[in-house]
Amino acid sequence: MSRLINQQILLKNYPIAEPQESDFALVETELPELGESEILNRTIYLSLDPYIRGRMSDRASYATPAELGKVMVGSTVSQVVKSNHPKFSVGDFVVGYDGWQSYGISKGETLRKLDPNQVPLSYALGITGMPGMTAYFALLDIGKPKAGETVVVSAASGAVGAVVGQIAKIKGCRAVGIVGSEEKCKYVVDELGFDACINRKTQDLSAALKATCPHGIDVYVDHTAGPILEAVLQQINLGARIPLVGLISQYNAEKLPPGPNLMPLLVKRALIRGVLVGDYQERHAEFIKDVSLWLQAGKLKYREDIVQGLEAAPSAFIGLLQGKNFGKLIVQVSDDPTKK
Amino acid sequence: MSRLINQQILLKNYPIAEPQESDFALVETELPELGESEILNRTIYLSLDPYIRGRMSDRASYATPAELGKVMVGSTVSQVVKSNHPKFSVGDFVVGYDGWQSYGISKGETLRKLDPNQVPLSYALGITGMPGMTAYFALLDIGKPKAGETVVVSAASGAVGAVVGQIAKIKGCRAVGIVGSEEKCKYVVDELGFDACINRKTQDLSAALKATCPHGIDVYVDHTAGPILEAVLQQINLGARIPLVGLISQYNAEKLPPGPNLMPLLVKRALIRGVLVGDYQERHAEFIKDVSLWLQAGKLKYREDIVQGLEAAPSAFIGLLQGKNFGKLIVQVSDDPTKK
Repeated sequence: MSRLINQQILLKNYPIAEPQESDFALVETELPELGESEILNRTIYLSLDPYIRGRMSDRASYATPAELGKVMVGSTVSQVVKSNHPKFSVGDFVVGYDGWQSYGISKGETLRKLDPNQVPLSYALGITGMPGMTAYFALLDIGKPKAGETVVVSAASGAVGAVVGQIAKIKGCRAVGIVGSEEKCKYVVDELGFDACINRKTQDLSAALKATCPHGIDVYVDHTAGPILEAVLQQINLGARIPLVGLISQYNAEKLPPGPNLMPLLVKRALIRGVLVGDYQERHAEFIKDVSLWLQAGKLKYREDIVQGLEAAPSAFIGLLQGKNFGKLIVQVSDDPTKK
Repeated sequence: MSRLINQQILLKNYPIAEPQESDFALVETELPELGESEILNRTIYLSLDPYIRGRMSDRASYATPAELGKVMVGSTVSQVVKSNHPKFSVGDFVVGYDGWQSYGISKGETLRKLDPNQVPLSYALGITGMPGMTAYFALLDIGKPKAGETVVVSAASGAVGAVVGQIAKIKGCRAVGIVGSEEKCKYVVDELGFDACINRKTQDLSAALKATCPHGIDVYVDHTAGPILEAVLQQINLGARIPLVGLISQYNAEKLPPGPNLMPLLVKRALIRGVLVGDYQERHAEFIKDVSLWLQAGKLKYREDIVQGLEAAPSAFIGLLQGKNFGKLIVQVSDDPTKK
């Protein structure tokens, strides 16, 4: 039997800004003989997702960069056409990570079998696959929406966003989407059942958020991390949760945008959370008990920078903002009768 | 008895960038007679803290703006000199919020009595007061440091930072400070017992963080939100926690710095957290069960945008990054035998 021809799309260059067709190369290669325990899959469906742009770069992302000259990466739904593996048989449908090629060879480690009678095969790349699962856990595990709260999601007609908003509705929340066209807006509201949707290309985002989120924003599932996040932040409620699932606004950026780049939060699944001491008033005793013990035991040291006289307060305060004080800055306004 | 004279420092203007002495006015006023249930306090100590700069502005912050022409705000330690209040007696020492003046009149709601025999009175403005309590809960409640982890804190010789680092040491962590002078560096290491300290004015912050945090950064208590946060983010570990307690880098800024302004996170005690679906692999069944049920019940709708042929992948992908797709973007690479 003659060898099969494999069509492959290779990464030719790391794109500088937006990828161009010339950054890809379509080649045809002969498939090698199958080795021990190997499986040959015919690709039926290939998933295209924004995160792939992050891998077409030697900048740090949450996965190792795609290699130049190698097959572009991506999730696939395939059918097994040859198998030397005891667990996979010819005809099986599988979801895997074979990339942009018409055939993939693997040892089965990353393959999961699909039941073709449940939902269409391609769903395993979307709503019952990685994007759907991202939506599910980002919203429920990090966003923790409560009935009656307002959930906003960007890229709301996309594979993740559409699921976020619909689960928000299932959980009894108000769901508001942000999209880039009128057609998508209509779809999100009329078909998916979101309460409202904002077209960021034609509407003033801040005004539209105010109008569609009259009680503020409790959860924002963010795909962008740029000006959309900035606008949403202005209208978040006390204790809001912002699961960050993508940074589309900067994937194509030639130079990273100024300001704190939040990519490491995604890469490291880390969190930034605002803290105000006023929220802990009822736990004051806990604090005083520990700190008093540590002070008495000499485990805590404390230094004060005391300036004399109320009239010295303005210049001391100006210096504080320049880092000129050394220790806790205090103004002694009048005599302390407990000090000799 | 002649009325007492009260020295007061008023806010004259909202400063544009760094406050100037001319933004303050020192005045002397006669104190009014005490009303019913009122207490007259003689200010002994006044606390100067960076957050006050945030209130000298009509920009949104976590407290209402200080009013022009009114007494500057601030925490105070005082002694009661007259009292019409049953719970406070002449001679009592109290901590309160009387502001920048030599006498304060209050109804006692915000006053807490101090025992002068425990720790020096002024400590109630620092280590046993609001800054110490901020450090305690920011580190322990949000930072959740585990023994062996690395805790970094900016403004490390300050009222909050010094306590953060010392509690980190008590909890068995590596503590690394960031400060603005050699003298503060020495103090933080030699007196407070931090493992290392970085002088951000003379050292390259990224290189110094690498050298002093060889196992990466697990907790960063952030006072600044500017370039220091940016540098720390580059070296955080998986699952890092960043309690945000201040934004010193932008308090004096004439124009807000570009990029997402994180002030709302502080104001609203909100959180941003990166999410990667890979972390939830062992909960895949939970997701599939819910989503399948919702799909069957018609509660979840799903739209695909299927392009034909592997060779169409590059242009479809380029369009995806421009938001041109509508629904989950899939490339059909070969026939799907389950579809008629």
